[in-house]
Amino acid sequence: MLGGRVRLWQPIRGYRAGTDPVLLAASTAARPGQSVLELGCGAAPALCCLGTRVPDLRLVGLELQPGYAELARRNLAQNGLEGEILTGDLACLPRALRAESFDHVIANPPYFEAARRIGAEAADREIALAGQTPLALWVQVAAKRLKPRGFATFIQRAERLPELLEACAAHLGALELLPLAPREGRPPRLVLVRARKDGRAAFRFHAPVVLHAGDRHEEPGSRYTPPLAAVMQEGAGLPFPA
Amino acid sequence: MLGGRVRLWQPIRGYRAGTDPVLLAASTAARPGQSVLELGCGAAPALCCLGTRVPDLRLVGLELQPGYAELARRNLAQNGLEGEILTGDLACLPRALRAESFDHVIANPPYFEAARRIGAEAADREIALAGQTPLALWVQVAAKRLKPRGFATFIQRAERLPELLEACAAHLGALELLPLAPREGRPPRLVLVRARKDGRAAFRFHAPVVLHAGDRHEEPGSRYTPPLAAVMQEGAGLPFPA
Repeated sequence: MLGGRVRLWQPIRGYRAGTDPVLLAASTAARPGQSVLELGCGAAPALCCLGTRVPDLRLVGLELQPGYAELARRNLAQNGLEGEILTGDLACLPRALRAESFDHVIANPPYFEAARRIGAEAADREIALAGQTPLALWVQVAAKRLKPRGFATFIQRAERLPELLEACAAHLGALELLPLAPREGRPPRLVLVRARKDGRAAFRFHAPVVLHAGDRHEEPGSRYTPPLAAVMQEGAGLPFPA
Repeated sequence: MLGGRVRLWQPIRGYRAGTDPVLLAASTAARPGQSVLELGCGAAPALCCLGTRVPDLRLVGLELQPGYAELARRNLAQNGLEGEILTGDLACLPRALRAESFDHVIANPPYFEAARRIGAEAADREIALAGQTPLALWVQVAAKRLKPRGFATFIQRAERLPELLEACAAHLGALELLPLAPREGRPPRLVLVRARKDGRAAFRFHAPVVLHAGDRHEEPGSRYTPPLAAVMQEGAGLPFPA
């Protein structure tokens, strides 16, 4: 990933990270010296990308499935990053995590509601794609683990935007929406939503970021727009507009 | 309005309709023979635009302020439209309205929360811009007055999107978001949100509609994009994408 800057072990069968954790990491406004918690970190692609772009972060990941947590530890080490991966459930946080708060909490929650995803092949892939945990709980736990004025950043399917905004409005403030459109003029398929603990600012709806150049998808992953190419191939950030 | 197709009386002092009711009317998918209720219709610019574009509608407007309601009646008549304008409060609907349901309910609720708008000059303009009625009540009343499978369509400032989506999700289904961007690549300032009574479809996030061509605002109202010019100057519709 990131033009070879990040190399990841991923399961042969099961959920494998695509561009979404890269975009999540690129949009996270962490500065050197800050702390970042990822909820549901999987094999830690987002933590590896973020730690590679921003030096001197405290990186902590929570992952439900022990196999992914083990891959995450291996991936951090392989990319020369220090960090801590805890195995545990959002709904019942490990004690160590309940004692700590963070400058940033990030998450790429499962994209489908569990009920809609019956019949996937691998049970662990199923959990990664369609968790049992309501989206609202992801946001609530993120809010609890943030320091005052800390930022929560989520990436999610556009279809779940109302649910995500509602949860953010209930627990956080200063909501911002950065839609991700596959092409110019196309409907966004993914959204980045950021919110701030104790934030008071009005909601901000940013112009969509366009991922691919051209009118159609010629080859997978091909022809990113220039800002996206910088993110995907050179490890650049994708900040929310100031 | 609509290139001279609609002519309106509006107050010399007080709230005067801009492009927003025109966009609301253009996006309303009413078909001949259907019924439309506008909540908070003001001087009825949206009802006049909609009735001019779509023949044979039953047009009903509710307006709190008697002066605007009187202008609304005059405007319908002057534009050769039949309709009924009721003076009354959303929070306590006139009895006649409580007995009727509609294929479409539309509204352009006040854009600011009352508390944020202290100090406007004219009290009636103040109410039009910053009502005392929570946005959630507008949506709840719209939902109650819809026939099964009927559509509610709202236009609102982008800043209030989370509040509007939350209210729609509580009372309606099949939510759709059509952002309105002043220029290509700029953040949307307004949003059209549509929802359906008893709707079950997933949320749809449409690509933004761009209002103005070019990079900056040279003259007020100048240089609409071609689809917007068709709406504003020729009375065309602006349908939500199929």
